[in-house]
Amino acid sequence: MKKLINDPEAAVRESLAGMALAHPDLIRVSFDPVYVARADAPAAGKVGLVSGGGSGHEPMHAGYVGRGMLDAACPGQVFTSPTPDQIEAATRAVDGGAGVLHIVKNYTGDIMNFEMAAELRQASGARVEAVVIDDDAAVENSLYTAGRRGVGTTVLAEKICGAAAERGYHLDALAALGRKVNANGRSLGVALSSCTVPAAGKPTFELGPGEIEMGVGIHGEPGRERMPMADARAIAGQLAGTILADLPFARGDRAIAMVNGMGGTPLLELYIVYNELERIARDRGIILARRLVGNYITSLEMAGCSITMVKADDEMLSLWDDPVLTPGLRWGV
Amino acid sequence: MKKLINDPEAAVRESLAGMALAHPDLIRVSFDPVYVARADAPAAGKVGLVSGGGSGHEPMHAGYVGRGMLDAACPGQVFTSPTPDQIEAATRAVDGGAGVLHIVKNYTGDIMNFEMAAELRQASGARVEAVVIDDDAAVENSLYTAGRRGVGTTVLAEKICGAAAERGYHLDALAALGRKVNANGRSLGVALSSCTVPAAGKPTFELGPGEIEMGVGIHGEPGRERMPMADARAIAGQLAGTILADLPFARGDRAIAMVNGMGGTPLLELYIVYNELERIARDRGIILARRLVGNYITSLEMAGCSITMVKADDEMLSLWDDPVLTPGLRWGV
Repeated sequence: MKKLINDPEAAVRESLAGMALAHPDLIRVSFDPVYVARADAPAAGKVGLVSGGGSGHEPMHAGYVGRGMLDAACPGQVFTSPTPDQIEAATRAVDGGAGVLHIVKNYTGDIMNFEMAAELRQASGARVEAVVIDDDAAVENSLYTAGRRGVGTTVLAEKICGAAAERGYHLDALAALGRKVNANGRSLGVALSSCTVPAAGKPTFELGPGEIEMGVGIHGEPGRERMPMADARAIAGQLAGTILADLPFARGDRAIAMVNGMGGTPLLELYIVYNELERIARDRGIILARRLVGNYITSLEMAGCSITMVKADDEMLSLWDDPVLTPGLRWGV
Repeated sequence: MKKLINDPEAAVRESLAGMALAHPDLIRVSFDPVYVARADAPAAGKVGLVSGGGSGHEPMHAGYVGRGMLDAACPGQVFTSPTPDQIEAATRAVDGGAGVLHIVKNYTGDIMNFEMAAELRQASGARVEAVVIDDDAAVENSLYTAGRRGVGTTVLAEKICGAAAERGYHLDALAALGRKVNANGRSLGVALSSCTVPAAGKPTFELGPGEIEMGVGIHGEPGRERMPMADARAIAGQLAGTILADLPFARGDRAIAMVNGMGGTPLLELYIVYNELERIARDRGIILARRLVGNYITSLEMAGCSITMVKADDEMLSLWDDPVLTPGLRWGV
């Protein structure tokens, strides 16, 4: 696998250095320990919002640092949890006195390291709460996970909670909102190809020329089943069908939907999948009130896509529409 | 090659249908003939801006339709020029009485069909001008091109001319501006893998496991040379070095730079390339005053990247900063 890198060990740091140079107005990057913070953090009186996880899912999370979304992101090595000292430093850096909310994807290493960092901060008298995202409808336990994996709903939770923090939500209300988004969110992904971790240098898994992995994890973890390749209609039907079986919608319910590319699938195809998702929603009387179509939570160069649906109430939709200004997501400013 | 499509023949139409559903506030899609127009076109008294070309380069061009950029885009089949009737209909639809500017990438089919459409409109008394983009520093003539190919500078020209049209530039001044951007823009791309046209079903070209195509075209056309794979520093050095040999910069000159993914390369890697480009610019005293890093002019799922540099004056930088609100590019609103 050919990659535009200099050295697998340095790839994350060099990429963050490029990010800092590309977005000096939005973010600043700390390299020791590694975290990305809003250029203007901390904001006095605002709850700080911190997320993080392994790299390789860009633009998530560092690309979502900025006004109306995250105050800081802690990138680990590719597909590797960030360390407690990174998270502790980021949490300290963005605490403007109103406490900090951690948004944590449900992977064992992430949970453990975010908890350790929170305890360190709490021992210094800071207020830190955590929301765990576990929205992957594919499987219960997985390679790096007890319970369900955290995937696409993370992006939507970061946007919605980021807007709420900007509006002045207190820490407890913000944590409750994050849990509401997670409880109403489900995702399912499909891989058409594997990805290759730079340090490994070979594909994470093997797929035959006519095979797909339905329910794949964002690190290439096994899904529900290895299936023969099918057309976009059948694949979208299976992704959405699994989600809607797990989180029933009534006619007239509204959703924020995401058709997400895993990194190696053309945008042309993602819009075809979105077209199918609209058809499915229309048939069931579900209103796709807001949507994202593009590469938002990727798995390096994996081909494939995921669908995320969050059942949305007025509060979530209103917060969704609030301004956001980050490298990866921007509107209203 | 596995693709998230239903039918190769219908892929472009179904993708445009998904786009229309995803961005009802920004665009509307005509299907007979096929073009994408601003939801609020035509704007009375404003010069209309129309581009187009083969599909498979998304978000270009349809993703750049909206306020502050294109008034209409004419998507052909994948890697196939749009037909004169598409272009004629789009040109008519967005003519608010101040004439229409065509931004055309230099490929034989595109040039011919945009010219035919312009003549049809002119025969009806409309004013139509054209700017041809031919910024690819790789080769002089190519598979589908007499002269140089039109690539990344197209995106920057569409943004800058779109802002100028919004400000009320007259047709002749707008055409002169577009030609100035093109004259000051150069690009070079590199392929790490081929792409696969849906209707062909097999890779456009073959690359060995350790080989790259330096100077590749956006349809997979041959470049300058087949080289052994190298690290990001060497590749960025060769891309930027070729551009800067072709379009000399003096110390203190400013550029709008783009590090563009061809569709299959992770964002993590594109930021590494941008980091290298900043180093090269610093060494030569060139100021990268503005930049884009991401997938802006793609070649389906091709792995690789391109660098575009436009030597920018105050007028171009000021227009660059104006608001833009399209599916693929947005800021300031």
